Amino acid sequence: MTEHIAPPATLTDVARRAGVSPSTVSRILNGTAKVADDKRAAVMAAIAALNFAPNQMAQSLKHGRTMTIGIVVQDIASPFFDELLHGVDDGLKGTGYASVIVSGHWNADEEAERIRLLLARKVDGIILLSGRISDANVLNFSAQRPIVSTGRVLHTRRAVGFKLDNEYGAWMAVRHLIDLGHRRIAHLSGPADNRDAVERLAGYRRALDEAGIGFDPRLVVEGDLHEGGGLLAMNRLFDTQQPFTAVFAVNDQTAYGARLCLYRKGIRVPDDVSLVGFDDLPGSAYTTPPLTTIRQPLYVIGQTAVSALLSLINGEELSRDIPPVELIVRETTRRLHP
Amino acid sequence: MTEHIAPPATLTDVARRAGVSPSTVSRILNGTAKVADDKRAAVMAAIAALNFAPNQMAQSLKHGRTMTIGIVVQDIASPFFDELLHGVDDGLKGTGYASVIVSGHWNADEEAERIRLLLARKVDGIILLSGRISDANVLNFSAQRPIVSTGRVLHTRRAVGFKLDNEYGAWMAVRHLIDLGHRRIAHLSGPADNRDAVERLAGYRRALDEAGIGFDPRLVVEGDLHEGGGLLAMNRLFDTQQPFTAVFAVNDQTAYGARLCLYRKGIRVPDDVSLVGFDDLPGSAYTTPPLTTIRQPLYVIGQTAVSALLSLINGEELSRDIPPVELIVRETTRRLHP
Repeated sequence: MTEHIAPPATLTDVARRAGVSPSTVSRILNGTAKVADDKRAAVMAAIAALNFAPNQMAQSLKHGRTMTIGIVVQDIASPFFDELLHGVDDGLKGTGYASVIVSGHWNADEEAERIRLLLARKVDGIILLSGRISDANVLNFSAQRPIVSTGRVLHTRRAVGFKLDNEYGAWMAVRHLIDLGHRRIAHLSGPADNRDAVERLAGYRRALDEAGIGFDPRLVVEGDLHEGGGLLAMNRLFDTQQPFTAVFAVNDQTAYGARLCLYRKGIRVPDDVSLVGFDDLPGSAYTTPPLTTIRQPLYVIGQTAVSALLSLINGEELSRDIPPVELIVRETTRRLHP
Repeated sequence: MTEHIAPPATLTDVARRAGVSPSTVSRILNGTAKVADDKRAAVMAAIAALNFAPNQMAQSLKHGRTMTIGIVVQDIASPFFDELLHGVDDGLKGTGYASVIVSGHWNADEEAERIRLLLARKVDGIILLSGRISDANVLNFSAQRPIVSTGRVLHTRRAVGFKLDNEYGAWMAVRHLIDLGHRRIAHLSGPADNRDAVERLAGYRRALDEAGIGFDPRLVVEGDLHEGGGLLAMNRLFDTQQPFTAVFAVNDQTAYGARLCLYRKGIRVPDDVSLVGFDDLPGSAYTTPPLTTIRQPLYVIGQTAVSALLSLINGEELSRDIPPVELIVRETTRRLHP
C-alpha cells in the first residue's frame, strides 16, 4: 500500500500558480524592492495557498546559490563607510541579491574571522571595504568565493581590487591653496600606519615641492582621523607658534574638529584661515561655511564593487572604472591678501 | 575489508588539542575579540594541525544555535542608525555572538522580507531597530526566533520592545527656550506619518500650552528629517514673514540644515536666533557653534537591545531599563534680550 503524501511545494509551483517566472518569486523571497505590486501580491497569495516554506538553505543546496552577498566594513558607525554602504545598497537593488553586513573593526584577525563566518554561511561573494588583512589572505579566501576589495589593487578571476589615488587628491587640495596665494600651509595628518593618510601626506609634500615651497615639519601635526583628534591637532598647531594661512586636513572629520578649534579662538574661516578637507562626506555641504574638500566617489565605489562582484560570480567581463577624485570648492578657502 | 578513514575533526578535538574549552574555540570561530592572544594562537595552531573545517551549518545543526544575531536597520547610511549599531556592536563584544545586518529601507514589505531572510538563515534572534511593520507582525515572527525591537512597546517571552519618550524630550527642548524668555518659537517638524515626529510635535504644543503661549500653525514648517529638508523648511519659515526668536528642530539633521540657512542669511546663532535639535548625534558637538539638543541614549539603547535579546534567547530575567532622554545645553541657545 502506498500512502499518497503531497510533496512540499517548490518555488516553481509558486511561480506557476502566481503566473510569474521562478526568478520573480526568487527576487521577492530575497527581498528585492523592484517587483511590481500586483506580481508581489500574486506571489504572496500563492505562497499562502500552497503553504510554501521558503527555506533558504534548501534553495541554496538546490541552486548552489544563496543569493546573498557578504559585506565586510571596518566601522559600522562611520560616515565614510555609510557612503560606501549606501552605494552598495543601491547597487544591489533589482539584482535579487540581499546583503549581510559584518564588521572587522580595523583588526586583521577579526576581519579574517568575519570573512570565515560569511564563507561558512555560504554567501555567493564578498565585498571587503578597506581593511587590514593582507592581499595574500584575500587571494586565499577568494578560492572559496569571489571577493571584491576596495583600497587595494588586485586583478584575478576570483579577486578584484581597486583603489583611489589619495596622493593625487591631496596634491589637488594643496595645489588649490597654492593657486590662491597661500605658502604657509599646515597639514593635519593621520596615523603613520594608515596607508591612505601616508599617501595624502606624500601628495601634500609633492605639491609644496613643485611650487618651490620648502617642507616645514613643524607645520605637520598628527590627528586620529576623527573630529576630536582634529580639534586637538589644531590646538597643537597653534602651540608651535608657527605662522600659517591655510590648513589641509587629512579627512573631513579632522577638518570638522579643526573648524571648531578655529571658531573657539575667534579665527574666521575663510577670512583668516583657509581650510580644505578630504572625502566630501554628506555633512560637508552643511558645515558653516560649507567645506572645500576632495571628493572621493564613495557612493560610486560601492556601486562599482557590487557590479564587479556580480560579474565575478557570473563569470562575465567586468568593468573596474571608477571616477577619479575631484576638488570641490565650497566656502572655506579664499585668495590670500597680498 | 574495512578501510580506515579518519573522521573529520570536531570542535571538541580542536579544543582538546589546544588545551582550551570547546566554548573558547566556538568564541574564536564566531569572531569574539575578547580571547587572550595565546589561547587564540593555540586554537589556530590546532585548527591547522587537524585540518579542521569550521562548518557553521554543521555546528548549528549540532548545537541548535548559529551564534549569530540578525540586525534590521532602516537606513544603513544614517548617523542615527550608526549610533544604535555602535551600541549593538559593543554590546555583542565578548558574548561569542556575531551579527549580520540587513536593511528594511523604511518599507514594511521589504522589512518583513529581510526578517524572513534572517529567519531562513537561522539566526538565534533578531534586533529590529525602528521600522514600519506592525506589532502583530513582530509577534508573529517572534514565534520562530526571539525579537527585540526599538520604537515600540512589547513585553512577551519571545518579543520585547522599548521606546523613548519623544513627547517629553520635545517638551524639555521647548521648555528650555521658554525658560530663556523666548515666546515666538518656531518648529521645523517631520513627516506626519513618522511616529517620532508626531510625538515631538505634541511635546512642542504641550510646552507652549503650559506656558500660556498660543499655538500658531504658521510657525510650524515640515521638513524631511534630513539636512536638505531642514534648510528648505527654514527658508519657508522666513517666507511666512512671521517673527520668531527661536527654532526647535525635530532632529539634529534638520537643525544642521536650518543652521546653514541662517548662516546664508547672515543671521547669527545664538545671538539673533536660538536653535535646538533632537538626537545628539556625534557631529552635534562639532557644529559651529556646538548644538544644544536632546540626547537620545542611542548607544545605550543598542547595548540594551543586545542584552535583552540574549536574555530572551537564554530564557533569563531581563532588564529593559534605558536612561531617559536629556537636555544637552551647548551654544546655540541664549537668553532673549528683554
